[in-house]
Amino acid sequence: MNEPIAARIDIGGILDPRSVAVFGASDNTDKFGGRIIYYLTRHGFPGHVLPINPNRDTVRGLPAYPSIAAAPGPVDVAILAVPPQALLDAVAECAAAGVGACVIMTTGFAETGDAAGAERQRRLVEIARASGMRIVGPNCMGLIAPRAHMALTSSLVLEIEAIRQGRVGLISQSGALMVSIFNRAHDAGIGFSACVSLGNQSDLEICDVLDWMIDDPGTDIICLYVEGLVDGARFFRAAARAREVGKPLLMVKTGRTEAGVRAARSHTASLAGSYRVFAAACRSLGVLLTDDPDGMVRAADLIRRWPRPPGAGIGVLSPSGGGSGIGVDRVSEAGLRVAELCAATKGKLLQVLLPPQADNPIDLGGRRSGDSVGVAGQCAAIMAGDPDVGIMFIVLTTVPFYEATTKALAEAALASGKPVVVAVTPGSAADGPRRVLREVGCPYFDTVDDGLRALRLLTARHESLALPPAAERPAGPAPAGPPPAAGRLTEPEAKALAARYGVPVTRETLAASADAAVAAAAAIGYPVVLKGVARALVHKSDMGVVRLGLADAAAVRRAFGAVEAILRGDLSVGAFEGCLVQEMARGEAEVILGIRRDPQFGPVVLAGMGGVLVEIADDIEVAPAPLSRAAARAMLGRLRFWPVLAGVRGRPPLDVDALVDAIVALGWLAVDLGDRLVDLEMNPVFVRAAGKGIVAVDARGEIAG
Amino acid sequence: MNEPIAARIDIGGILDPRSVAVFGASDNTDKFGGRIIYYLTRHGFPGHVLPINPNRDTVRGLPAYPSIAAAPGPVDVAILAVPPQALLDAVAECAAAGVGACVIMTTGFAETGDAAGAERQRRLVEIARASGMRIVGPNCMGLIAPRAHMALTSSLVLEIEAIRQGRVGLISQSGALMVSIFNRAHDAGIGFSACVSLGNQSDLEICDVLDWMIDDPGTDIICLYVEGLVDGARFFRAAARAREVGKPLLMVKTGRTEAGVRAARSHTASLAGSYRVFAAACRSLGVLLTDDPDGMVRAADLIRRWPRPPGAGIGVLSPSGGGSGIGVDRVSEAGLRVAELCAATKGKLLQVLLPPQADNPIDLGGRRSGDSVGVAGQCAAIMAGDPDVGIMFIVLTTVPFYEATTKALAEAALASGKPVVVAVTPGSAADGPRRVLREVGCPYFDTVDDGLRALRLLTARHESLALPPAAERPAGPAPAGPPPAAGRLTEPEAKALAARYGVPVTRETLAASADAAVAAAAAIGYPVVLKGVARALVHKSDMGVVRLGLADAAAVRRAFGAVEAILRGDLSVGAFEGCLVQEMARGEAEVILGIRRDPQFGPVVLAGMGGVLVEIADDIEVAPAPLSRAAARAMLGRLRFWPVLAGVRGRPPLDVDALVDAIVALGWLAVDLGDRLVDLEMNPVFVRAAGKGIVAVDARGEIAG
Repeated sequence: MNEPIAARIDIGGILDPRSVAVFGASDNTDKFGGRIIYYLTRHGFPGHVLPINPNRDTVRGLPAYPSIAAAPGPVDVAILAVPPQALLDAVAECAAAGVGACVIMTTGFAETGDAAGAERQRRLVEIARASGMRIVGPNCMGLIAPRAHMALTSSLVLEIEAIRQGRVGLISQSGALMVSIFNRAHDAGIGFSACVSLGNQSDLEICDVLDWMIDDPGTDIICLYVEGLVDGARFFRAAARAREVGKPLLMVKTGRTEAGVRAARSHTASLAGSYRVFAAACRSLGVLLTDDPDGMVRAADLIRRWPRPPGAGIGVLSPSGGGSGIGVDRVSEAGLRVAELCAATKGKLLQVLLPPQADNPIDLGGRRSGDSVGVAGQCAAIMAGDPDVGIMFIVLTTVPFYEATTKALAEAALASGKPVVVAVTPGSAADGPRRVLREVGCPYFDTVDDGLRALRLLTARHESLALPPAAERPAGPAPAGPPPAAGRLTEPEAKALAARYGVPVTRETLAASADAAVAAAAAIGYPVVLKGVARALVHKSDMGVVRLGLADAAAVRRAFGAVEAILRGDLSVGAFEGCLVQEMARGEAEVILGIRRDPQFGPVVLAGMGGVLVEIADDIEVAPAPLSRAAARAMLGRLRFWPVLAGVRGRPPLDVDALVDAIVALGWLAVDLGDRLVDLEMNPVFVRAAGKGIVAVDARGEIAG
Repeated sequence: MNEPIAARIDIGGILDPRSVAVFGASDNTDKFGGRIIYYLTRHGFPGHVLPINPNRDTVRGLPAYPSIAAAPGPVDVAILAVPPQALLDAVAECAAAGVGACVIMTTGFAETGDAAGAERQRRLVEIARASGMRIVGPNCMGLIAPRAHMALTSSLVLEIEAIRQGRVGLISQSGALMVSIFNRAHDAGIGFSACVSLGNQSDLEICDVLDWMIDDPGTDIICLYVEGLVDGARFFRAAARAREVGKPLLMVKTGRTEAGVRAARSHTASLAGSYRVFAAACRSLGVLLTDDPDGMVRAADLIRRWPRPPGAGIGVLSPSGGGSGIGVDRVSEAGLRVAELCAATKGKLLQVLLPPQADNPIDLGGRRSGDSVGVAGQCAAIMAGDPDVGIMFIVLTTVPFYEATTKALAEAALASGKPVVVAVTPGSAADGPRRVLREVGCPYFDTVDDGLRALRLLTARHESLALPPAAERPAGPAPAGPPPAAGRLTEPEAKALAARYGVPVTRETLAASADAAVAAAAAIGYPVVLKGVARALVHKSDMGVVRLGLADAAAVRRAFGAVEAILRGDLSVGAFEGCLVQEMARGEAEVILGIRRDPQFGPVVLAGMGGVLVEIADDIEVAPAPLSRAAARAMLGRLRFWPVLAGVRGRPPLDVDALVDAIVALGWLAVDLGDRLVDLEMNPVFVRAAGKGIVAVDARGEIAG
């Protein structure tokens, strides 16, 4: 593939072109080209529109040209939905005619999964790179640029009066989802700064558009629908920059579960599968992940309005006990925190509500006086004023004086300045209240599901504002030592590498003979553990080459002989390298710690509940490396296993500080190993009581060449 | 509270009355009584309507009566939304006038949470029970009886042209949710056989209506919204009967999480909290639980249409890669199974689709030929014909020839006879396709969330058809022995009780003196374990009264002395009863087994991952007792811990049969203990390799008086 020469046009130019050529333009809106030129002219694009059609003199009253070469140029953007067999020639003509960029809707390229499709895409990119012409697509649904009054798409979702302008940017790999999302958002009154579908990302890719939107003063918040990233590291750099400039990034990533299914069931892969790593990295950068594209855009609109939600506690209010019951259960089940009202708030609520209803959730059905509209407004104001209420969630059921009550609730809640999310549970019976909500500018959703998704994203946004500080390399001299050799590490090699960075490991000596083992044991102190060492050895215990509790020299000597016999008898484990003589360590709990390099997303650290049941427990957290002490502690705090570390049921708190030190140190080890890291894993690491430290008892690893 | 005398009217009579009296009836629809009589007359109730209003001669052209006593009677049903202070007198007048039932919307009764409200409700019930008059409510929203063309409610959701008749029954504790659900269902074209809100369930309760609907030939399927059941055991009897007659029961139960929060954090309570028990019992009876009332009714309509879904494998199809990607991720994340297409199906798909798209999920974007409408229909037919596809899930995005494609997809999928669920992702742009879907009678949802909920319930319905057989008491002589004394059981007492039913426990002897302990140890064989016994002793290990690995008589004697000193020195644990001398048991894994009696739902068995981390692992399943071997095995199979039992990573399969025996035996123990059971828990139970059995190592329990 050729290196690109200087680009003829940038993203901003593509989204606001002076001229657009439409291949296959006709007056027939049953055809792709016919619809494209129809929508382009219908929505008032003020630039120059050039229909390309050898069989027409005019299209929609505009002079048509038999070819791009015959059209007055150079043209900024050409859009092509021509048949596959004609596409490459048309693109080559565009390149020759000086076209700035081609938007290609035609399919039949890399997405076919066959060699012919891949070859067609290679030739397409070759043409583009050789000329500096940019490509959007192929296999995309074009783009919509509201500020330029321009739709470059054949999708019937453009059958609307006018394209709404807004400040949400949308980047979608899928063309079909881009137009579905656009249509839903349009119906909900949400406009975009720009919508771009990238399809196969053959030339321009998601991050090109993302970088542009981060700099675009007309875009406040960015939504992404992504199937696969061309360059994971570039994406994370962009995400970090978006965070710096204060533009929230929301994202739906598919392949969450397919990735898991396809991933090799190797040990490490199953512990830190690709989506898990991706999600952890996103969390550390404040990228807000969700699962529904429409819900993402609705939530983006909320976050645009309340970019700094003041808290993550949810206040739930409903006109009915049923609504408040549904609301509070769903909020809790979604892992969100139901706010705890302070005594002052409860006292105020008790003036107007009966005791069972004067708390979170509020059920307005329990009011003392008869002025239901007034009480509704009062209650909303009181609850929204509570310091622990960061977001108000109103589950609206029918009620007498429905519109007036809705108005009172919404206005009082909005007056607090805090985010307000309303879920309207009835159907057409709530058309009036929906109108009222629109009039007072209060966000609402027609399902509790959608409301919850918005709550989750608002909460995630709040939490992303308090992300741990960036990692700083611990003070003191840098770890020193020769670089590890490529290939699998034996247990003592893996431990030595970790120990260089300050991770405590068992006292141990690699003994090449029984005599050496006995001498080592005497130095370490009985009882000792003896473990066979061979480079390709994986499940030591299963092979019977781990001997615990050896109490004297005779036992060590016998064990050495037995282990040596086993390993020398099994060629699959590689050469016998001796036995590791090790102190008998003890601890209160077993954890797993590890690092690995994700091919897409770089170095990560993992930590979780360890021991032989590590895969069954499946209680592992992942974070990108390096990480700060605060991030390491937060990672441990997310484990189900956390109460064991923190101390439960009379058990003492364990040495979390020492674990945090080790996690931070491993993060830097991962960074320093760079591309050479495959993985390094220590399991079990024994954790002792607070102040007593930790010790890695077993380890394995692999280094690339 | 008085015992009721013979009821004057049954539920059927209340839902199809000859006459209805409306208290506070007026021509003013701003008033409760005014709206009630307006909706009653507007929807064509053919019976006798009697407005009760001392200030009017006529209401809506009907003769009005100053009091119920003055009205021609006896009246079948009176509906009252009068002020609280007038309510009891009005109800007493109804009772005196021979009214069959009062539907009471007035609030201010038990739901206030104070003594005055409770007392008002007590008097209300007293009046009813003394007369045989029935009460619906108070604090309800009335009822809707479409077959009688009757709405007895003040809710504005009755502002519709006509009440749809249907075959779904709806019972809602919350009045507000009943009308919200009714309204959403109405908008979706779904009608009801009857909708009843029960409010405080002061007299008629949820199960009264449920029993009636189970017998009602006009009701095919029943939806319930429940906050609390008056009589859990009665509900389960009704659920069993519904299952026998083949009427599916769907249910939203609130208080799922509140229950957890409020539940005492005692050991057993946290392991088998009330909702968990309830959900387990529901699962065993085929009751389909969900979390959204509207989604419940939509799903009920689907299940009514496809009462026997042929499988639980989901076939996912979309016109676009984005739609199929979203669909398959969400299906997997919801815990549903993506169907595995057979070779024949894939072969047929390869005729029309490219290889990457010719599998589940199907992305129609990868078609070979240009006839997109024809290919869509072909693909839907081929996928729906696959034997592993039990349910079709179509994620509809925009596409050229949108309506024709939608029609082809829906018709082909429906022709298979299998359930079809469509999620329409665009908004107004899909209005045409939505119309087409309605025309061909294909169910669709406007959100993937709603579609998924329907898929989950269809899948649950399929699985409920294959529930394990009823439990049968194991053959052989019934366990014999004296009934246990009331109070806490010591470890040996708890084990002896379980052992009577065949649960293997450690060989052990309770020794009152050091000499007796030494003799017992000699009989059992060294090494032994010695444990202090005292009735109020809970965390033995934490107190240092468990001594492991005692190798000889001297060690036993020393341990006895030390344990006795500790226990005699701590009055809180109760009298020292001696030391239990016990074999040193071994096993490959530790489980917890237990039984308890839930005050609402009766006896249950619990089984899960055991050991000291039982609460951290939180991997416990619960099932109602007694249970069959198949049910016990299914319960184990649901544990995350299951792979350890089944054998993982070269570890041998463990003795699951012995565990199943123990679970079944414990179920019968729970049944036989009846009301006397509080709880009995064994942790750890060591599980050995297959064929080697299990052994309960520790146990505790409590028996009621």
